[in-house]
Amino acid sequence: MKARVHVMLKTGVLDPQGEAVRHALGAMGFDKVEGVRQGKVIDLELAEGTTEAEVAEMCEKLLANTVIERYEIDLD
Amino acid sequence: MKARVHVMLKTGVLDPQGEAVRHALGAMGFDKVEGVRQGKVIDLELAEGTTEAEVAEMCEKLLANTVIERYEIDLD
Repeated sequence: MKARVHVMLKTGVLDPQGEAVRHALGAMGFDKVEGVRQGKVIDLELAEGTTEAEVAEMCEKLLANTVIERYEIDLD
Repeated sequence: MKARVHVMLKTGVLDPQGEAVRHALGAMGFDKVEGVRQGKVIDLELAEGTTEAEVAEMCEKLLANTVIERYEIDLD
């Protein structure tokens, strides 16, 4: 089974990487871009029977820094 | 309107970052993790009327290195 985890900076946390991308896109003439936030996506290949709670524990302990980041889990 | 872009290493391209995460999860006792691939997610806030073709052009020109990375676009 597979899980996809998104780790994004929380709203209100400054995202200099996203800001740099927005600036670069503007400089390249893509003037329809109003905002950019960049995060991580982690695709996990898991043994059958792994629960969402176990993936959440991985996020809390390793994958995300929950002080400044939030995560979303999609289990397939 | 919003678009979410995923940029992942192509299959077959070594992913040392994902491998490091897999190793760390294993060392922490998460023994159900069989594989990890890590990529980027870019959330774009776009002016109304932006087309998927325009977002694809942003991917080709800036967001992805198409020699080693593939991208997926989800337009909302």
